[in-house]
Amino acid sequence: MKSYRKELWFNTQKRREYINITPDVETALAESGVVEGLALVNAMHITASVFINDDEPGLLQDYDQWLERLAPHDPSTEAYKHHRTGEDNGDAHHKREVMGRQVVVAITEGQLDFGPWEQIFYGEFDGGRRKRALVKIIGD
Amino acid sequence: MKSYRKELWFNTQKRREYINITPDVETALAESGVVEGLALVNAMHITASVFINDDEPGLLQDYDQWLERLAPHDPSTEAYKHHRTGEDNGDAHHKREVMGRQVVVAITEGQLDFGPWEQIFYGEFDGGRRKRALVKIIGD
Amino acid sequence: MKSYRKELWFNTQKRREYINITPDVETALAESGVVEGLALVNAMHITASVFINDDEPGLLQDYDQWLERLAPHDPSTEAYKHHRTGEDNGDAHHKREVMGRQVVVAITEGQLDFGPWEQIFYGEFDGGRRKRALVKIIGD
Repeated sequence: MKSYRKELWFNTQKRREYINITPDVETALAESGVVEGLALVNAMHITASVFINDDEPGLLQDYDQWLERLAPHDPSTEAYKHHRTGEDNGDAHHKREVMGRQVVVAITEGQLDFGPWEQIFYGEFDGGRRKRALVKIIGD
Repeated sequence: MKSYRKELWFNTQKRREYINITPDVETALAESGVVEGLALVNAMHITASVFINDDEPGLLQDYDQWLERLAPHDPSTEAYKHHRTGEDNGDAHHKREVMGRQVVVAITEGQLDFGPWEQIFYGEFDGGRRKRALVKIIGD
Repeated sequence: MKSYRKELWFNTQKRREYINITPDVETALAESGVVEGLALVNAMHITASVFINDDEPGLLQDYDQWLERLAPHDPSTEAYKHHRTGEDNGDAHHKREVMGRQVVVAITEGQLDFGPWEQIFYGEFDGGRRKRALVKIIGD
């Protein structure tokens, strides 16, 4: 069994951004030499997500507004008890749970085994600093 | 390491349906010959989910109504910017994120290693056309 | 390819509790002898979650209150059709879908390959009875 590991680093300008990392995962897959197996892609931070959906700017704006309704950014300690620690990112911990920490993608004949519109995104909910995602590939 | 791949196809009558695909995944597992490993089951479309829960009709209705509250079906461009592309399925992209794209199931002694009530569902949120899920099994 | 399986059992006092199981998963990893691979950790019950986030008591309280807003505990059959079966845990089935059934964690050089704050939690939403999570590890 082969295994391969690669970190992808980000430093977003805005608090929240959605970055298509499919080409980076495809590069990692080519580097791994794995032809049949599984690729795990996960945020290494607990205020960010990795998810799969459509690379359509309107949809990404929709997600952003919807997540803000489900868990609004509000630095007060009334909004989030987590802010008693001095943090102001309670909303980001919640948004990340809706969108998920990780995806697992099948690898078939050396390719990401995707349906027609699947694209992998890094969803940043507390940006403006260096953060990263992990790609771990196993297989033959 | 063995690997096995199978597509499961659906063409639902209604916009939203919840289909128990556990028998199909068990069939794929038997075909794979894998005794110890992991099974990935994922929607290949970005307006559908694969999730694990109880095969109880009342619960599935509860999920459906709850998802409709969290992300209502509304074809207007006010409701979802995604509809500026001509699509009317913005809600389906959101519902899918709540329920998730994929499950990963342990394979032990040639069986899906499940608790007492776990069943795998394909959750369709934008049906009435041919769509599919992927089963990818790796192991020995 | 090696594989290893272990059940983790819980019997919470309260209906809802959040238990850091990272040390248990690390023990299972050491027992497995796997150095490079993947660890699947999943709830074996459909009213519980396994998720990764921060071990900060205020945040866990925030999650609990937020989940209660998204899917309130209410034993009536008006609140959840699932209760027509005699159950009173419809809310728990919904909370579990927000937080997720499983995590998949990379194993690198014999360790859980984690970012700085990642911790694995068992999230119980219908406790007061014996329930369990599964750890399945595959790799070399």
